[in-house]
Amino acid sequence: MGEDRSVLIVGSVALDSLETPYGTAAGALGGSAVYASLAASLLAPVRLVGVVGGDYPAEGMELLRSRGVDLAGLEVVEDGKTFRWSGRYKGDLGAAETLSTDLNVFADFSPKLPESYRMTPYVFLGNIQPGLQQQVLEQTAAPRLTMCDTMNLWLNTVPEQVRKVMGRVDIALMNDAEAKQLAGDPHLIAAAERTLELGAKYVVVKKGEHGALVCGREGCRFIPPFPTTRLRDTTGAGDTFAGGMIGHLARTGDLSTENLIRAAAIGAVLASITVEGLGVSALAGATLEQVQERYHALEKCSRVPELQ
Amino acid sequence: MGEDRSVLIVGSVALDSLETPYGTAAGALGGSAVYASLAASLLAPVRLVGVVGGDYPAEGMELLRSRGVDLAGLEVVEDGKTFRWSGRYKGDLGAAETLSTDLNVFADFSPKLPESYRMTPYVFLGNIQPGLQQQVLEQTAAPRLTMCDTMNLWLNTVPEQVRKVMGRVDIALMNDAEAKQLAGDPHLIAAAERTLELGAKYVVVKKGEHGALVCGREGCRFIPPFPTTRLRDTTGAGDTFAGGMIGHLARTGDLSTENLIRAAAIGAVLASITVEGLGVSALAGATLEQVQERYHALEKCSRVPELQ
Repeated sequence: MGEDRSVLIVGSVALDSLETPYGTAAGALGGSAVYASLAASLLAPVRLVGVVGGDYPAEGMELLRSRGVDLAGLEVVEDGKTFRWSGRYKGDLGAAETLSTDLNVFADFSPKLPESYRMTPYVFLGNIQPGLQQQVLEQTAAPRLTMCDTMNLWLNTVPEQVRKVMGRVDIALMNDAEAKQLAGDPHLIAAAERTLELGAKYVVVKKGEHGALVCGREGCRFIPPFPTTRLRDTTGAGDTFAGGMIGHLARTGDLSTENLIRAAAIGAVLASITVEGLGVSALAGATLEQVQERYHALEKCSRVPELQ
Repeated sequence: MGEDRSVLIVGSVALDSLETPYGTAAGALGGSAVYASLAASLLAPVRLVGVVGGDYPAEGMELLRSRGVDLAGLEVVEDGKTFRWSGRYKGDLGAAETLSTDLNVFADFSPKLPESYRMTPYVFLGNIQPGLQQQVLEQTAAPRLTMCDTMNLWLNTVPEQVRKVMGRVDIALMNDAEAKQLAGDPHLIAAAERTLELGAKYVVVKKGEHGALVCGREGCRFIPPFPTTRLRDTTGAGDTFAGGMIGHLARTGDLSTENLIRAAAIGAVLASITVEGLGVSALAGATLEQVQERYHALEKCSRVPELQ
């Protein structure tokens, strides 16, 4: 029996309504756990933890199963409704304006890991209430690697809970605005360095169209964005980045800083695919070959030649 | 006699009043031509074109002369006052809020190149009215390389003049907001590609804390920012970037795309020095050794390793 390279992913499973300058979608597959699972499952076996209502479409289950995602941890509340989010983007596809959020079955979510999930070596705590992230972490048995994402909502409402869980994982993941808010420092690199003091081995900052920053005890490294010009919808880009990262780490089993840089670049590449379609449409059609091709292009376009 | 590696720099020569969270300065040395000249003169001989009033402090002249900057093209209007700008920065040192602008002698500036300047092979048209940039260009004799900067003021008031001069130079330089405005496209890479259509060989986009983008016919390349955590004042960072770029191109004489990437990285490194002091203070103390050291660090921290 080979080494277990599975990834556990917990997060939201949602139905999204999206308004973008390039099109709209209603009740589309979405949620942090779905984007992250679709990305990670291109690289490693995925075990999903989440909750949906009886209204969750069969196509959602089928898409995840077609990627080999284990749904034993997806709770179905038959008489409940799936979490719904509705957002609108302006022309530059920057931050979405949230039009409505209906928590529905998500309001009472209390993640319970199936027995078959407990030994999963790679754990990604996608964006959900930090207390629930903590609850998942406590049900795992000494994972090789843990990574945690968050969002501004939790930094505004339960900042101490965010700090606590971010300090207990190996990789604290957040976007640039969240890093600045968490550290109380308007300068990104200083903010990332202060976040490291909470206890994580690495802080990875997602900067959207500007790429990402990977900070560890040895300093910070930059991950450039993949230069796509076919931007359509940025929903789920950060979750995709996370799924790509942990998927690469699980696939290779190499937890060196050098390989974390590769993992972040794989995340950036996968995010560049996600943003080229509405909702999960582009990501659902991604292949490992496409990811590897874009990785090589990214590696080339980010090379700063030696001084002569 | 060796090849002439001189750089002609035209732009503003100003006295700045700065308010930052880290300190204030009144009547400090500033202006696009001064920042660019201080940066470029670490790498190549510089010939400055600009105008000051009789009130311009001797220390300004001395600082520029100490770097070997040729001031034959610096017009002194004895009974006039030097251009003055006053700006205030918030905690994140993003865009400055302009408090006042007194054009003074700059209002009637009509750049005339000394005979000794006309054959200068490398020409940087720093941020001044695009009609004046054009006027300088017409007084040069077949330079090897021309580069042009601009600012939002001219894009708001005389966009067609900006387009005209940006299309006639080899390198069109601007910041991200200006590139989006010029192209009328909210997506940066698409905007840079559309700007190329004006006629320049390369479009270089300065993205401040996010580095830079170099776009040519073969595609776009990313230049990471040097990860300084000692940010004090971002005034002149873009002009410093430009001076570093053209200084490196003149110093090496190599106009290949690969060397343009190096030049932009040198620009990024020099800009990282400028922002560590109020006004020109940090840049004035920079050395070539310091620039080279930071370059090597930047090259390392931006390397995306090959996939294995």
